[in-house]
Amino acid sequence: MNQAVFEFPLNEKVRTYLRLEQLFRQLSQADSAQEDWQYVKFIESLFTLLDLAERVDVRNDLLKDIDLHEKNLDHWAQHPNIDMNALKQAKDNVAGLRDALKNAKKFGSALKEEKFLMSIRQRFFIPGGACSFDLPNLHYWLRQSQQYKQQILQGWLSEFSLMKRAIELTLSFLRERGRFEQVEAEKGFYQGVADDKNEMIRVYCQTDQGYFPTLSGNKYRYAIRFMFFNPEEAGQVAMESMVSFKLACC
Amino acid sequence: MNQAVFEFPLNEKVRTYLRLEQLFRQLSQADSAQEDWQYVKFIESLFTLLDLAERVDVRNDLLKDIDLHEKNLDHWAQHPNIDMNALKQAKDNVAGLRDALKNAKKFGSALKEEKFLMSIRQRFFIPGGACSFDLPNLHYWLRQSQQYKQQILQGWLSEFSLMKRAIELTLSFLRERGRFEQVEAEKGFYQGVADDKNEMIRVYCQTDQGYFPTLSGNKYRYAIRFMFFNPEEAGQVAMESMVSFKLACC
Repeated sequence: MNQAVFEFPLNEKVRTYLRLEQLFRQLSQADSAQEDWQYVKFIESLFTLLDLAERVDVRNDLLKDIDLHEKNLDHWAQHPNIDMNALKQAKDNVAGLRDALKNAKKFGSALKEEKFLMSIRQRFFIPGGACSFDLPNLHYWLRQSQQYKQQILQGWLSEFSLMKRAIELTLSFLRERGRFEQVEAEKGFYQGVADDKNEMIRVYCQTDQGYFPTLSGNKYRYAIRFMFFNPEEAGQVAMESMVSFKLACC
Repeated sequence: MNQAVFEFPLNEKVRTYLRLEQLFRQLSQADSAQEDWQYVKFIESLFTLLDLAERVDVRNDLLKDIDLHEKNLDHWAQHPNIDMNALKQAKDNVAGLRDALKNAKKFGSALKEEKFLMSIRQRFFIPGGACSFDLPNLHYWLRQSQQYKQQILQGWLSEFSLMKRAIELTLSFLRERGRFEQVEAEKGFYQGVADDKNEMIRVYCQTDQGYFPTLSGNKYRYAIRFMFFNPEEAGQVAMESMVSFKLACC
């Protein structure tokens, strides 16, 4: 039985967090790059990251969320049977991250000074536009040693390491907020009401039954519809039986 | 001593050929895809390929070029000491490809019928827009077995296998047209005159001297400038000594 979690953000902030998380997950494998096109793809993802970091004020959102987490941790401190050492460690971790974020420059701003990187950036927006004749300097760079390229690439990525830590922490707190509960979608349809703290809906369901979940809605109310994957029977699942799945409101 | 070939197309047709070649080179490793993001990247490149194939009438260009090659092969047949068996094999190969091209539908047109592929295409134009919540059906697809995904992906790619063969053949003929000759660029500058058959300039030079070649020009006249890679000394190489490199006009 194959199962997977489908995550649906309920606001723009969490959408951005999840996009960033996906980019970081990919870029964490940049050290495996060997072929030219792999380097090109990692640089492309770095540009996407830079683009997101420029458009959205992620830092402010992260700071607010981290403040909230600190208050949560204070709240837990009043519980009996709490491991005070572990809690203190968690609090120190969060506080350190918050201070680092407050003192940090805008994410990726140092990369703006990277003349080589900035000189090739424009062409990356054109699909298939990073050929050797478009960017002979990139072609030259790609001919340098593996060690040199990795050092440069990891240097660029390190500009985002603080952002990466903050995103990981914030999303892990967010995910812990909701507990999976077994629910059923009659004829593939489930309607839920979000409370004002909910920012993400997580659906844990089977992935070998030919259908997948979609979510529409907003921070007040949302609907989950299970859709057939097979285009021949495209549309909402409308079976006699229920679709059983697990739901967590975070 | 590290050396590499830098290729500069002199017309739009060869630009497209080289872009396609680069995409095919990348997609030839699609069978190594394991991680989700790798599948996503290969699908993205498939869309770029489809996009190029739709915008440009590559087939007509390829057919014209292949006609030309056939005439060239006939010409070689009159040379003494030619290996007639090898020549016949080459001619059969070219003729087979020409007939297949003539009878082929528009490249990639079958993929337009792939509802799943077409349903996710739009989102791929948005940088970072292929997250699981953007495309839950892609997320579902990614959760299927490695064997299933490879079979589907290779099926999509097979729509372009004829195009791939034709591009490889045409570019190999094109590259064989020019022979590398040692030339020198005084103060990093070299000016050349193209004859009306030249479609690509190939520069074979060192890649460990801190400079790379750029080309500007058209089908009549072109200039090669060697530029410093290091941004601190950005600009044209203007050394006392010459830059020695090999040049082939194809």
